[in-house]
Amino acid sequence: MSASAPGTEKGFGRLHGVGLGPGDPELLTLKAVRLIGEAQVVAYFAKEGRPSNARHIASRWIRPGAVELALNFPVTTEIPFDQPAYACELRPFYEKAASEIAARLSAGRDVALICEGDPLFYGSFMHIQARLKDRFAISICAGITGMSGCWTAAQAPMSWGDDVLTVIPGTLPRAELARRLAGTDAAVVMKLGRNLPKIRAALTDAGLAERAIYVERGTTTEERVLRLADKSDDDAPYFALILVPGEGRRP
Amino acid sequence: MSASAPGTEKGFGRLHGVGLGPGDPELLTLKAVRLIGEAQVVAYFAKEGRPSNARHIASRWIRPGAVELALNFPVTTEIPFDQPAYACELRPFYEKAASEIAARLSAGRDVALICEGDPLFYGSFMHIQARLKDRFAISICAGITGMSGCWTAAQAPMSWGDDVLTVIPGTLPRAELARRLAGTDAAVVMKLGRNLPKIRAALTDAGLAERAIYVERGTTTEERVLRLADKSDDDAPYFALILVPGEGRRP
Repeated sequence: MSASAPGTEKGFGRLHGVGLGPGDPELLTLKAVRLIGEAQVVAYFAKEGRPSNARHIASRWIRPGAVELALNFPVTTEIPFDQPAYACELRPFYEKAASEIAARLSAGRDVALICEGDPLFYGSFMHIQARLKDRFAISICAGITGMSGCWTAAQAPMSWGDDVLTVIPGTLPRAELARRLAGTDAAVVMKLGRNLPKIRAALTDAGLAERAIYVERGTTTEERVLRLADKSDDDAPYFALILVPGEGRRP
Repeated sequence: MSASAPGTEKGFGRLHGVGLGPGDPELLTLKAVRLIGEAQVVAYFAKEGRPSNARHIASRWIRPGAVELALNFPVTTEIPFDQPAYACELRPFYEKAASEIAARLSAGRDVALICEGDPLFYGSFMHIQARLKDRFAISICAGITGMSGCWTAAQAPMSWGDDVLTVIPGTLPRAELARRLAGTDAAVVMKLGRNLPKIRAALTDAGLAERAIYVERGTTTEERVLRLADKSDDDAPYFALILVPGEGRRP
């Protein structure tokens, strides 16, 4: 494994992928605070026309005079995240975002790309890393994942002893969701949104509906935690989660 | 879901389960730093006769005059973690640790129980929480998991798009390990130690030996990252990990 890249010797800047954690600004790490404060350029993802959630979490630590680089996702509300057309829309977006960051790095600027959650866990950062890692030096600062934030909000012990924990995108077909849920000790179902009715059915198929916990925006001021059985509607943000805590070995 | 407990009204202290992250002291969160600094009593797990790793990570932030409460695991080197005898040894240990913490809480002191990684993810904290949650107010501060620290050390993007990620204890039998590894997109195998030869065999059975990355003490000064295929011996600490990064959707 090599963590270095040729860029630094040539006077190029360094790209920092900085995890911001699940939403509570106090869950930033000391390292993230330092990297954000030192950065000459702070880049972040946002949806076109909306404020960036990442910027909101980190805003207190961006130094005056830092250049801000908003990477605006194309308007995507009309295409579900899990459709092939969405990937087609996203490829040119990531290409453009990577080249905008590359321009700053080539000019000798360090860039902090700030990211909700952990940069390497279902993170948009990875699409930038994949495009730039052979040309520039990249460092990564881990962050608390969204799922950690959600099980903490629920005060739910997730995995004990020899429990197997499975992280399952709710975009999968109902039968596959049910099969994977039935075959694990603990589960996190991600990417809810319009998938919630299907996920609910799969949890019932797997005999787990009673154990499921619904968590929305864990660790933020809008946090919501309830038993899925007590949730009477199927409205859910895409980034809400369902937790099925494990019940393994407990000395 | 109820996050409250009856304790606070009666002048009892509050228990804070504080995640410290994977090892690098700079990966403490701002919230962890605050809670450690405010705590009248700082409790931590340690192995009898050895310095506490948690205390080492947090030491800079413990305030002068704070009472320190070391919760010393019984000497366990002669009993593997995954044997029933180990649980028998641990039960009285957790009972005693919980009652020592309860004594401080009953005396009106707040206690910060500092924990490596995330308190609710395979954490010893959960055994204390389970014993005290009906009697005392408990708050939990998430931490970066050890696995996040390890995939960051490896700069390995772990899960993309619709990848299923499975966290598998290396204590499971070879056939079950192989079956679970073959049936997932991305995997983290935990609890290596003397299980490494068996895990290596299961990775080969699942056709994944070439993709596996071995990480030891990720984010610490003793960090080691190498392709498992390049690791010529089977010596591994219990808390080392194997990563099989996903290869999912990449727009």
